[in-house]
Amino acid sequence: MVSKNQIKLIKSLSQKKFRNKYGLFVVEGLKGVREFINSDYELNSLYTTGEIFNVPGELSDKIKEKDLRKISFLKTPQQALAVFTIPQQKNINLNGLVLVLDGVRDPGNLGTIIRLCDWFGIESIVCSEDTVDCYNPKVVQASMGSLTRVNVSYTDLKDFFLNNRNVPVYGAMLDGENIYSSNLPDSAFIVMGNEANGVSEEVKKLLTREINIPQFGQDQNTESLNVATATAIILSEFRRGNSIGK
Amino acid sequence: MVSKNQIKLIKSLSQKKFRNKYGLFVVEGLKGVREFINSDYELNSLYTTGEIFNVPGELSDKIKEKDLRKISFLKTPQQALAVFTIPQQKNINLNGLVLVLDGVRDPGNLGTIIRLCDWFGIESIVCSEDTVDCYNPKVVQASMGSLTRVNVSYTDLKDFFLNNRNVPVYGAMLDGENIYSSNLPDSAFIVMGNEANGVSEEVKKLLTREINIPQFGQDQNTESLNVATATAIILSEFRRGNSIGK
Repeated sequence: MVSKNQIKLIKSLSQKKFRNKYGLFVVEGLKGVREFINSDYELNSLYTTGEIFNVPGELSDKIKEKDLRKISFLKTPQQALAVFTIPQQKNINLNGLVLVLDGVRDPGNLGTIIRLCDWFGIESIVCSEDTVDCYNPKVVQASMGSLTRVNVSYTDLKDFFLNNRNVPVYGAMLDGENIYSSNLPDSAFIVMGNEANGVSEEVKKLLTREINIPQFGQDQNTESLNVATATAIILSEFRRGNSIGK
Repeated sequence: MVSKNQIKLIKSLSQKKFRNKYGLFVVEGLKGVREFINSDYELNSLYTTGEIFNVPGELSDKIKEKDLRKISFLKTPQQALAVFTIPQQKNINLNGLVLVLDGVRDPGNLGTIIRLCDWFGIESIVCSEDTVDCYNPKVVQASMGSLTRVNVSYTDLKDFFLNNRNVPVYGAMLDGENIYSSNLPDSAFIVMGNEANGVSEEVKKLLTREINIPQFGQDQNTESLNVATATAIILSEFRRGNSIGK
């Protein structure tokens, strides 16, 4: 059984203001829930229709499929839904590559980017305050458990860059230099901008290098690359040298 | 005004069987509709709430916002909806790179991949019969007009490879060789597999080279890359040599 109050609480966690008020967020699906339980995240409550996880009984409810449907954010609920505590922001490790997101708004894009960082061994993502919340259920879903391994924090980007002036700031810009012939360091901030408007004016001024993925098709009507696919290519370029011995 | 029959016809075009029956598909949004009108695609009918396009009057209807909502597949209809004729499959240009999709099912992934091919100057995509239909409204929407510049065709992949034995077949495989140190030719078939199961057993036998994007993060739980982001990185690797003079 899930009480009306529990349903109301869980459904409210689709909204950032209630996630912040209660300090809680939702994870769904067996694989995702298992990864969060096995991570540093603190479990608040767990609802499953099938598989029993190894968690204290008072935190876990076995419920019916129809009750899971009442609390799930998915069209097709996936056997388990868990509520976790939003942790304190961790310190950012400035050694190595740090991805910086300046106003990325689409939850699917952020989720895909978190998953990419996990693949490419990027420990930290630093987001502008207007970037979509990483505990948005759609972000958690799209990131496929990678949020347990990638540290996402939110801050004022201008202050962040000014406080870390010794790290080079690479920005993805349509008029930047050809990334394929650029010298790419092992330690840097890599800035990706908003889906429609790119990097903001304020952040542009703080870039030390502007890079671009050249277009090979000849047509002027071609849309620029989506921010998630552009991030994939840029992270691949920064990492490839380490894979083949530069 | 949009008649009940027109509404019924247009709404039916969300399904492949009706697209095939009528030989028609839907494009939405001002930019997308403009690109298709300016392409080789044959316009069947156009419905707009605002901007007038330069098309014969008998094909064009100015309609009210509320009528557009009745025929649109979008949550927020975007001023224009057009119906075009599905063209005959074109011949595939075997010079250069050809992307081959083996069972890609998600419309958003196919749309993103079509847009990537447009960016990287890949003229042709050859799809297995079980790949999602490129005239699915979600594919058309996600491809952002790129479908007017990229030739997508459907065929039996086994026959296709056997009929073109002189072209090398590269397949993205988790146990393939490191793509960053592979010698990548200017002419090849590049095979990307299904979201869950990768390249099919039948097609695997016909690959001449297996390639892989190495994982840099150390965790075994990390999901493999999404097919669209993996395609982005692989096309970038095939093209980058041409950009910097190998």
